[in-house]
Parts: sequence; C-alpha cells; structure tokens
Amino acid sequence: MAKVKKTPRPKAQTPKGFRDYFGADVSERNNMLETIGSVYHHYGFEALESSAVETVEALGKFLPDVDRPNEGVFAWQEEDSDWLALRYDLTAPLARVYAQYRNELPTPYRRYAMGPVWRNEKPGPGRYRQFYQCDADTVGAANVAADAEICMMLADILERLGIAPGDFAIKVNNRKVLNGVLETMGLTDVAQRDAVLRTIDKFDKVGVEGVRDLLGKGRLDASGAYIDGVGLSAAQADPVIAFLTSKGKSTAETLANLAQAVGSSPTGAAGVRELETIATLAAQAGYSSAKIDVDPSVVRGLGYYTGPVFEAELTFDILDEKGRKRQFGSVAGGGRYDDLVKRFTGQEVPATGVSIGVDRLLAALREKGRIASQERGPIIVTVMDKDHMSDYFDMVTELRGAGIRAECYLGNPKNFGNQLKYADKREAPIAIIQGESERNAGRVLIKDLILGSKLAVQATLEEWKENPAQIEVDRSDLVQNIQAILKKYT
Amino acid sequence: MAKVKKTPRPKAQTPKGFRDYFGADVSERNNMLETIGSVYHHYGFEALESSAVETVEALGKFLPDVDRPNEGVFAWQEEDSDWLALRYDLTAPLARVYAQYRNELPTPYRRYAMGPVWRNEKPGPGRYRQFYQCDADTVGAANVAADAEICMMLADILERLGIAPGDFAIKVNNRKVLNGVLETMGLTDVAQRDAVLRTIDKFDKVGVEGVRDLLGKGRLDASGAYIDGVGLSAAQADPVIAFLTSKGKSTAETLANLAQAVGSSPTGAAGVRELETIATLAAQAGYSSAKIDVDPSVVRGLGYYTGPVFEAELTFDILDEKGRKRQFGSVAGGGRYDDLVKRFTGQEVPATGVSIGVDRLLAALREKGRIASQERGPIIVTVMDKDHMSDYFDMVTELRGAGIRAECYLGNPKNFGNQLKYADKREAPIAIIQGESERNAGRVLIKDLILGSKLAVQATLEEWKENPAQIEVDRSDLVQNIQAILKKYT
Repeated sequence: MAKVKKTPRPKAQTPKGFRDYFGADVSERNNMLETIGSVYHHYGFEALESSAVETVEALGKFLPDVDRPNEGVFAWQEEDSDWLALRYDLTAPLARVYAQYRNELPTPYRRYAMGPVWRNEKPGPGRYRQFYQCDADTVGAANVAADAEICMMLADILERLGIAPGDFAIKVNNRKVLNGVLETMGLTDVAQRDAVLRTIDKFDKVGVEGVRDLLGKGRLDASGAYIDGVGLSAAQADPVIAFLTSKGKSTAETLANLAQAVGSSPTGAAGVRELETIATLAAQAGYSSAKIDVDPSVVRGLGYYTGPVFEAELTFDILDEKGRKRQFGSVAGGGRYDDLVKRFTGQEVPATGVSIGVDRLLAALREKGRIASQERGPIIVTVMDKDHMSDYFDMVTELRGAGIRAECYLGNPKNFGNQLKYADKREAPIAIIQGESERNAGRVLIKDLILGSKLAVQATLEEWKENPAQIEVDRSDLVQNIQAILKKYT
Repeated sequence: MAKVKKTPRPKAQTPKGFRDYFGADVSERNNMLETIGSVYHHYGFEALESSAVETVEALGKFLPDVDRPNEGVFAWQEEDSDWLALRYDLTAPLARVYAQYRNELPTPYRRYAMGPVWRNEKPGPGRYRQFYQCDADTVGAANVAADAEICMMLADILERLGIAPGDFAIKVNNRKVLNGVLETMGLTDVAQRDAVLRTIDKFDKVGVEGVRDLLGKGRLDASGAYIDGVGLSAAQADPVIAFLTSKGKSTAETLANLAQAVGSSPTGAAGVRELETIATLAAQAGYSSAKIDVDPSVVRGLGYYTGPVFEAELTFDILDEKGRKRQFGSVAGGGRYDDLVKRFTGQEVPATGVSIGVDRLLAALREKGRIASQERGPIIVTVMDKDHMSDYFDMVTELRGAGIRAECYLGNPKNFGNQLKYADKREAPIAIIQGESERNAGRVLIKDLILGSKLAVQATLEEWKENPAQIEVDRSDLVQNIQAILKKYT
C-alpha cells in the first residue's frame, strides 16, 4: 500500500526581497513621515491616499524613469477581466487620480502622498521590492514659482528632520537648457539625442573624461568590457561637456556659462531664465545658494523630466563598509513633467513635484546619530503569585495612569528567571517584584535594570535583593519612586 | 492600405472595489491610527510592520474566518518560483513572523500592527477590497489575564477616541463554554458540531426562534427559500438556546446560568472560570460591567477562536438610509486562538488579540459628529502681478513662519475670478490680495472668505473691495491681522 504523503509544513519566511520592520524602526519611520507630511500640509498641500492597486492599463507597464528601464510591476489578472498591479511609485497614481477627478479637484491640484510602493526587480543587498515614498506635487501650474516652492519646502523639511544647513544642498538643473545645448549642436536625430541623454546620465559614475569618451568613440569600463560611444567628434562633444561643467563660483557666473552653452536656442534661453527665477525667488525668501543652488552637473532624471530638475544631497561624510570616507548623496529628487496626464486625457497638464526616499534618509540620519537613541521598553511588573494577578494589574494600571508605559508579565510565571530575561529582552528600564512577604508587609521591590544591567540575568531572587540597584518601598509610594528613577535617565 | 490603428487612451479609473481617499479622510484616519497605536504602545506592545506581500504557502490559501469561507487573496506567481499574495489580514503575517523570528523575539511577544489588507472578493456597496486593520496581539501567553488586558485596552482606546462610557460595550464570550455545552449534549459527530456552530453564527440575523428552527427542521428565509435544519430534536436544541440566552441581570447570574448550561463538562467549567477571571480582573481595575461584560449572545468568530472571544459594540442609535433608528454595532473583535503558529512549527503557541475596524469606527464617529468638523484649507495669497512673485512668496513665508498654513496661487493668474474660485474650492478661510496700487501704498487687502462666503465668487475686484468682509491694512501688519481673523473662528 502506498504511504500517505504528509503535507509538509509551510516555511515561515519573508518573501525574497521583502522585509519586516520591528519596534523603533517602525516608529522612527512613522515620525519621519509625520514630520514631512506636516510640512507638506503647512505649505498648502492636501493628503491623498490612492489605492495601492491600479489597473495595468492606467499604470502603464513600465517605469518612466530612464534609470531603470527594465523594472517591472507585480501584476495579476482579474477573472476574465482587467490586469491589476501594485503601484511602483506615487506619481503614476497621481496622474490617474487627477485625470479621473479633474472636474471636481481644484486647479492647481496640490497633493501629498506617502506609502509603500512595490517594484518587481531582482532583489539585491539593501535593495528591496517594497519601500516607502513620500511625495508632494503641484498639478496644473506652469509657473516656475511652483518649482521654486518645492525646493524651499524640501530645504525646510531637511532642517526640520535635524539636518544642519551646511549638511545638505538642493541642486537645480533644467532639461530645457540641455535641449538648448543639443539644438545648438545641431543634433536633431532622435536616436542620437537619446544616446547623448543616456550618456549624460552616467556622468555621476564615469566623470567628465568618461562622458567625453562615451560621446566619442567609447571606452573600457571597470570590468574591462568595451562600451561603444555615440560617435560624436571631439568638437561636437564640447558643448555637452561645457554644459555639465558650467557651474561657476556664483549663481550669476553659472547662469552666464549656461547662457553661453545654449547659444541662440530659444528653448535653452527659456531654461536659463527659469533657473534664474528659481534662484532669485529662493534667495529673496532667505535660502542661500548653499541651500538651493543652480548646478548643471545634476543629471539624474534629466531624461525623464521636461523642465527644472532638482535633487537634495546630504553633503556630510560617512564611512562606507570598507571604512573609506564618502558622501551620502541623494535623498530626494524631483522636477517638472508636463506630459504626465496627457496619456489619459490627451491634454498636456503642467506639473512639478518631489519624491523623498524615506528609507534612505532614515539610514542617513541613523548613521549620523541624528535619531534619538533607541526607545526603552515598558516597565515590567513581574508575577510572583498567579493568584494575585489583580494586584499586579493594579500596579500596571496606576503606572499607565501616570503616563508611564508598563505591562504585567503574561507568560508562564513559574520560572522567575524567565521573567527577568523577558524584561532584559524588552529593554525594560525597571522591573517590579512583589512576593508574598512583600505583599503582607504592604511593600514592593523596584529593580533598576539600567543600573543593574551588569548583573547576570540568571541571578537568584536573593541576589537581586542584595543588589543596590534594587529598593524596597511602600506599595503606596510605587509610582513616585518609579518616576524618580525614570527622571534620572531622561 | 489598412488604416493604422490608434492605441486607445487608458481609462483613468480606480480598479473596481478599490477607493481613493482625499484630504480630511486621510488625516482623520491617520489621527485615529496614531491614537490607537499610542495606547497599544503605552500598554507595552511593540510596533511591527511586516511586508504587505507574503508567500501563498505562508499565508494559507483561505481565510480562517468562518464568516467568509470563499474569500480569496490577490496572488501571482514569481517567475518559475513561489506564488506570492497580498496579506488578507494582520494575523496570518504575525504567525509567520513569530515562527520565523521566535528565537530572537521575547516571549510573550506583544506586537501591534496597522495597515491596509486586501481581499479578493466581489466588491459591493460599502465593501472594499482594500481596507485598514489595526491589531494588537500577545503571542505566547496562556494566562487569561492577557485576554482581560486586551478588553481593558480596547475600552481605553474607545474612550480616547471620544466615545462616551455609556456609548460602547465590550462583550466577552468563550468558545470553551460552547464546547462544554456541545459535550453535555453528547454531540460528538464533527460534521454535526460544525453545523451547530454555523447555525449559532446566524444568531445575530435570525434571533432565538430562527436558531431554534435551524437547529431543528429548518426554516423559510427572508427570500422565501427553505433552509434545511441540522435535524436536532427540540430537547437536543434546548442547551444551545439556553447558552445563547444565558445573560442574566448581573455577571454572577450570567456565570451561574453558564455553569448550569455546561453541566459536568470539564472544558465548559474551565471556560466559565476564564470568563469569571476576566470579569473579576476588569471589575477590580475599575471597568464596570457596563464597559466589559460577559455576554454569551456574542457569537461572531466563535467558530474560529479557541477560548475567550470579545467584541466591541457601539450602543448609540444612528439612523439608517431609510431614517430608521438602528444600533451601529461591532467596531472591533478578537479572541484567543491557540493554534495559529502550529502550522509552521508543529508546536501550539497560545495567543490572543484584537483587531479594530478603523474604517467602520471612523464612519461611526463621523455619523455621531465626534470628529472635529472638516479642516480648513490654507490661506491663499492671490497673484495680481506675475512679475512680483517674490512679494507674494514673502507673504506666504511670513505666514508659514507664524505657524499659519498658507500658499501662493500658482495657476495661471490671468483670470482673477479663477483665483477666488480656487480659494473657495480649497475652503480657504482667507485670501490676500495686493495689486499695483496697494503695493505702491505699502498696503494689502485681506478678504475674510468665511464671512464673505455669501457673496458670489464671480464678483469683480471692485465689488470685493466694497464688501465689509474685506479690510485693507499695512503690509507690515499682515500677519497680526490674519491671526486676529483666524482667532474669531477657533
């Protein structure tokens, strides 16, 4: 007779590329989202929480970001019906929402949104398939003042999060200026223009000489493979290089360099004027060029956006895994994209916005020690006598009533050592003990676990009693004694 | 030649059964989640945010809730690999997380979680496929004090959310008591026991007589269809009816009735003792039986849970769509489920928890007018002269600096009426106007839109000026005048 096959037990495992977040990691992120959201709100933006699920039709199948052309979405088909997918960012849903409700929504529509997005890409170290975004966008505003406002708001947010004015820079570039440069070069072939854009996008990695090689004949990359170039002559490549390196000692100098780089192109000139307006508005509102600066070397997203492009960088040094100093880099980016809603309505709607990489920003603040040390656990009321649970509950209720986080040990109370191990694992600052003798005497033991942390958690009750970190007080004085101990540690 | 087919434009539409939330709806929910989370935290629970995506293997394919045996999940297959799915609740992920990290986590593991869950069920009116849950659970605590604590915490939360003590009741029942009743009846056939459980689950809808009919021969339902009964004799059905109707005038009376209903069953007696312990602990901690009460008529989830079962009901009347008075009903529920982790590890781990239906609770509070009236929009600084944007930005910056939510109109400023329509749509309390003459005189117009809301928004600038709801002040007095107006409305 064949053996009956047992169903194997399911594996308890987070799916590959996903993560679980515990305790302080959750509350620190929530605090950050709340701070960012309150600044967005203060600037007049309204909250929007769109559905996490979109039709693939509304979403479009691929990411618009040229950085990652192959990224996909998590998608499934409804029974004999639409394909649905998880949103991959908060901008595509904004376009759908604006197109859907455009007759009811105010114009400009100013909304902020925060929440997880999902990307169906190969997971890697530090690269997750679910992460948080936190965006603000103004839809229906052609005025470049909307872009300037976003840069200022971003600066306010970074300061509110505890980043000192000298530790960040918001850099502004403009796609129109680049278009002007390409016009001036006479580069009209679309394929060649796209190739130039893709090359510029590598500027961060390969530097000026790398871009020059790649615009020309090509170059050997770090792995030794030969990368074909765009095939421009050295003279043809010059304007692109001039553009990328046109940052001067002052904003005026940078703008003058750019004006030269775009030659007689009207598009280019318009782009330079936009940058000038942003710089002027920011300066007049009290944001120095150390905070908000025109910088043509910012190339990320230049292929995606249609006007101003901005990026917030943290400028302080951190140590990488090999102990080498490096800069933390970009934590937020955005820009103007005037064709987002057109897919749905056929009409071009000017829009500009920013997306803050919350998880990256959290990592930066943690590395810089700018996030308050890990929160403590609750006070643990231990259970010496299961038949007197209501006495222990009374203590907890009193403590909670006094605003003190507390709980009663609810596991099996038999092994007292386990209760102290539990208090230790929870990083409890204090444990409270009341056995029969203490109860009969109307007394209670208070164990300062921070002070007593050097003692082995396996100590016997007698050893604990001898420890000076432990005091015995009247039951009626419990709360005030706890408050006194906690005060020492704040 | 064949015509080139144009790709049709995508439809801008929220997928069926999903919703988008705007403005105050988002912030009100966030406020509620924050309040609930802070009480959970104060009670000693730790935040957990698990991945929204789980392997189907870890999740199990079906919901454990007997209420909805056919509900599915949104699932898709990884390339040649696992099937993944969106979580359908926060309990299944908790079981996975606890099993996965059990060696590192403290025991008991006390965690709270909040976030969206997804259900692949047929959408209906008021029935969405994505909604929020907000749970707290204690895993690894067999002590029924853990259940009592959850009931007390739930009472605290409802009061913190503004629900008066007389307007809610937390009702506690126990599956073990029911098991005792079935034992006493000699009902050992599993299929028949399940049929009795399913019948009891309909008690809310069909009442005592309905349950009696369905335990016996069956009955005609509202639609006129005949529903077959379980086939018990009237005498056999009596203990079940006695159980369901055993609520007495006092807790002591209810417990005595239950003790009688379970006869000599040890399981039943244990269940009654648990209820007694919960009632005693709650009473001694100051929660009256009006707040936390033993009530055997609470049947929801009785088929799913293994011990105490609790449900929070709002007891105030609301009017239904036909203007009839009815009670709002359940807003939270929970209980003990001792077999949740067993699927993964083979070991039974005692656990108890609660899930709050945040969206339902919000609806109840809105209906009762317990949520502060809709928040106002930002103050709108209108733009009379595009070349003076930095003047308008200055005003906004000053207002924001004084803690006042404000924004500058960033749409096309040409049509001034559109700016006032915008302010109206944003529910702005105040609009600020500065044309050339005001600017030259160092003055600014402040328009009290709340006072002036009776005027047509199409009024000309001249008409607006005549309106007493509008004042002209020195530019330097702008902020203090705005503060004075806002003070009137708080």
